Amino acid sequence: MRGVVMYAPGDFRVEDRPQPAILKPTDAVISLTATCVCGSDLWPYRGAEPIDGPSPIGHEYVGVVEEIGDDVTTVKPGQFVVGGFSASDNTCENCRAGYQTSCVQREWMNAMGAQAERLRVPLADGTLVAVPGAPEEDLIPSLLTASDVLGTGWFAAAAAQASPGKTVAVVGDGAVGLMGVLAAKQLGAQRVIAMSRHNSRQKLALDFGATDIVTERGDEGVEKIMELTNGLGAHSVIEAVGTQESMLQAIHSTRPGGHVGYVGVSHDVTLKGDELFFSHVHLHGGPAPVRQYLPQLINLILSRQIDPGKVFDLTLPLEQAPEAYRAMDERRAIKVLLRP
Amino acid sequence: MRGVVMYAPGDFRVEDRPQPAILKPTDAVISLTATCVCGSDLWPYRGAEPIDGPSPIGHEYVGVVEEIGDDVTTVKPGQFVVGGFSASDNTCENCRAGYQTSCVQREWMNAMGAQAERLRVPLADGTLVAVPGAPEEDLIPSLLTASDVLGTGWFAAAAAQASPGKTVAVVGDGAVGLMGVLAAKQLGAQRVIAMSRHNSRQKLALDFGATDIVTERGDEGVEKIMELTNGLGAHSVIEAVGTQESMLQAIHSTRPGGHVGYVGVSHDVTLKGDELFFSHVHLHGGPAPVRQYLPQLINLILSRQIDPGKVFDLTLPLEQAPEAYRAMDERRAIKVLLRP
Repeated sequence: MRGVVMYAPGDFRVEDRPQPAILKPTDAVISLTATCVCGSDLWPYRGAEPIDGPSPIGHEYVGVVEEIGDDVTTVKPGQFVVGGFSASDNTCENCRAGYQTSCVQREWMNAMGAQAERLRVPLADGTLVAVPGAPEEDLIPSLLTASDVLGTGWFAAAAAQASPGKTVAVVGDGAVGLMGVLAAKQLGAQRVIAMSRHNSRQKLALDFGATDIVTERGDEGVEKIMELTNGLGAHSVIEAVGTQESMLQAIHSTRPGGHVGYVGVSHDVTLKGDELFFSHVHLHGGPAPVRQYLPQLINLILSRQIDPGKVFDLTLPLEQAPEAYRAMDERRAIKVLLRP
Repeated sequence: MRGVVMYAPGDFRVEDRPQPAILKPTDAVISLTATCVCGSDLWPYRGAEPIDGPSPIGHEYVGVVEEIGDDVTTVKPGQFVVGGFSASDNTCENCRAGYQTSCVQREWMNAMGAQAERLRVPLADGTLVAVPGAPEEDLIPSLLTASDVLGTGWFAAAAAQASPGKTVAVVGDGAVGLMGVLAAKQLGAQRVIAMSRHNSRQKLALDFGATDIVTERGDEGVEKIMELTNGLGAHSVIEAVGTQESMLQAIHSTRPGGHVGYVGVSHDVTLKGDELFFSHVHLHGGPAPVRQYLPQLINLILSRQIDPGKVFDLTLPLEQAPEAYRAMDERRAIKVLLRP
């Protein structure tokens, strides 16, 4: 089958890869209807994360179950499924606490390589959620977002405790930040401030429920948030970038007692203890346990209460994955959907 | 009047200081019944924090109101009062959110110097809580703990979300850590693991409600917590030291989705973003808004449901404050009460 293989920064190819097969009785193999490129895939693409030999990549997926192992009971061949970007048993104590990305049996889907025609999914019972019936074609992009960016934005908004009456600021106007705007709105936030300098992203943010746009970043961005919040800072801040600047921008934009939900994969971030101490903020984040939110998000999508699929502003055949990476790297596209 | 004055690390003296007076109509002046030395006072004593010229010190106090400014309405001369270690108006948005130590008008009481015979308290209406009637003599040490260490331990336990059914670990066996044990127990924790290598502190921890003692520290301490928690880590961890080692010990002892409540004043602590990210913990702490808890804590003390005053294992006259510092510095005493 065809799939994306990383060779070196900037050198990601579409090649023939071995057909995935059932390796354990808890596995499923699915035929992918759609997959996509994640902002976090750009870290190795840009050389900011090591690449370990030619290796597959991709962790966002929706598709149809082809085959299941003997122990799989909750999904069956022919069903359309959405799964989280990490495999989880959904039964261990961490999963039951809602932290499926810290499942004691966790496996990262990146290692399986979801940018491909077919995919082996470990721990299928705990990882996959079947969509009732066959979803309408136009809902497929939205269902695909549930696999990572929507669930990640949702977790960020939940970790930031976005809720009615609150002012939420969102640092980062990538797909996850935009999904954070959507989630904050859905969670009832009174005011959602999107921090973005890009026209197309600002428009999408407003579409997803932002009430204010702040174009400044760093300390100037913080100042602007202070102006908008009576000098106190936002109640809730979503951090969706993962750099030192964005993390400090998020912490400094939060009022004492407020909450920072951070989901940008941290790269070279160091936080000073005394600064955190006197900020009085709550800090929570990490790899989003999207599995926790899948049933709820699938319902919202199927009932057309949300339309997160709009975050895809480019669709390409899988064979053109290298162009998808280039478009996202050069910020010509917010997020690219790939059709195997 | 007599009061402690810092000259240099290790050189803290009891001297004549000017009588405090009402400077603003919101001030009160109180005559101190008891004061004490805080673990955080040891930072400048040990040279780990700069000392700005000869300056007063001390921020824990109980006493009798002598004089009030024209705008003070909630306390009056003759009343026995307890106050927080920072002055707060208790009306601003941060105070109303429960973060009185981030009051927009905050003043640190250390600058007023509570290790003295008398004390000026700014924002008296927001800072002081009157105790009904004259407290029994044997309750005075406990009431004094409410001014800082008890309230700080309580905030740490609340920030760590100690509650029924949970396992709480406490890093630090100083007065605040011990108060954290007491608070966790009061908040209903099922299991409270005190990390302590000192016999007398272990005994006190057990007295305050600890169910387990771990004598190891650092990575070995973390390993021990893992052994005691089925390899997952504690639900809630209180950090009551403020060093790099103690902070990492706390974070590493917490399970994914668990909560770290940190109240040790951070000194030279830096946290790596990626380590925090993948730990999945909640982090909250800072200078404890003890004012929030004062009414509740005073009630628990007056009704003799808790006896936090036991944390004082040495009582000296104010004149012997230098010996109080030495005893705490050399860990001969857990906490020293000073009688002006």
